[in-house]
Amino acid sequence: MARRTGRRPGNPDTREAILTSAREAFAERGFDGASIRTIAAGAGVDPALVHHYFGAKNKLFMAVMNVPFDPDELLPQVLADGPDGVGERLVRTFLRVWDSPAGAAGVALLRSVISNEWTARLMREFVVTQILRRAMAGLDLPPAEAPLRTSLVASQLVGLAMARYLLRIEPLAGVPAEVAVVAIAPTVQRYLTGDLTDVFAAHPVPGAPAEVSTGTPPTA
Amino acid sequence: MARRTGRRPGNPDTREAILTSAREAFAERGFDGASIRTIAAGAGVDPALVHHYFGAKNKLFMAVMNVPFDPDELLPQVLADGPDGVGERLVRTFLRVWDSPAGAAGVALLRSVISNEWTARLMREFVVTQILRRAMAGLDLPPAEAPLRTSLVASQLVGLAMARYLLRIEPLAGVPAEVAVVAIAPTVQRYLTGDLTDVFAAHPVPGAPAEVSTGTPPTA
Repeated sequence: MARRTGRRPGNPDTREAILTSAREAFAERGFDGASIRTIAAGAGVDPALVHHYFGAKNKLFMAVMNVPFDPDELLPQVLADGPDGVGERLVRTFLRVWDSPAGAAGVALLRSVISNEWTARLMREFVVTQILRRAMAGLDLPPAEAPLRTSLVASQLVGLAMARYLLRIEPLAGVPAEVAVVAIAPTVQRYLTGDLTDVFAAHPVPGAPAEVSTGTPPTA
Repeated sequence: MARRTGRRPGNPDTREAILTSAREAFAERGFDGASIRTIAAGAGVDPALVHHYFGAKNKLFMAVMNVPFDPDELLPQVLADGPDGVGERLVRTFLRVWDSPAGAAGVALLRSVISNEWTARLMREFVVTQILRRAMAGLDLPPAEAPLRTSLVASQLVGLAMARYLLRIEPLAGVPAEVAVVAIAPTVQRYLTGDLTDVFAAHPVPGAPAEVSTGTPPTA
């Protein structure tokens, strides 16, 4: 898009300048560290204008990521009935988005995440702050366990998207969504709410930065 | 690399020409459909020369993919003690390769798989014929169930590599490998040998090409 110089309300360049500034800020400082004030300053506009264009900071992040779904709409559906059956509802909702026309955008997003370190950092920040953190809050998981539990969920769901939509490994790529739901829901349910005593015994400071294990690892 | 014309035994161009021909053949016809004869013809050399340079067809495929590990060495370790504990051994071996210096090559391979449709096709073919199929044979899984079971395993392991090494989602990215082993081994064990009666009830023709579900899917 050709850039024009005048940045006024209603000018598409203003919108674009805010998005560019926000993209840099979210990647460099993370979602929590990037303030609307800083983003506005980077775009050379008034903070009120950022709110005017995008609303709350999480909506601005969604616009930056151009994600083909709205966590504000989907998360309440997944979390509504509490911990029981949340694995099944999460996998079913995940596959409904990917199997919809929005799925093509998802594949494009996945490709760009993987080929570009900058996009990968943004996506990690988006998944953690906009999806996993809110899912944890909604499920009332033990705070010390929640980060590892949700990153395990991320590992299964990212892998499901990769295997089914990008690598297209058969038969998983071709089965009806409900088959994948029945197969994978128990995994997600266990990661979220199952007894992971042995996991947390192996990981004495859950959620803390990585440490070198002090015991002798059983690498028989 | 500058290409020279003479292709003789010992000439690096011969080796390169065979690899190029093999890459095309494996991507277009799959591992089973690509013959040494066709690959040799594509490179303008005698089939005996292909064997001389690379040995068996699966070794040629490994050279094409430039994978940083040898399934011939690792699979027997994983499969040696039979179905009991195979999930744990598989996840531990998987993480040992990724946590070794070879892991950097793995990340590069994962990136190229994802940004390039051609490489994705080759990787899918490699994973299915060189790893999953042989793992199935070694575990003596019911033939009708084996393809879906192993593609479920692929979804978890690809996602583990993505989350831990490429997206680096914490705390999974930073925990000692044994923590991830304890957390993820039961998932892989269930996919391989667990009771998936409900999954196969939802998927009446396991391993067959994708079909449109005839029943009313429970998308409540």
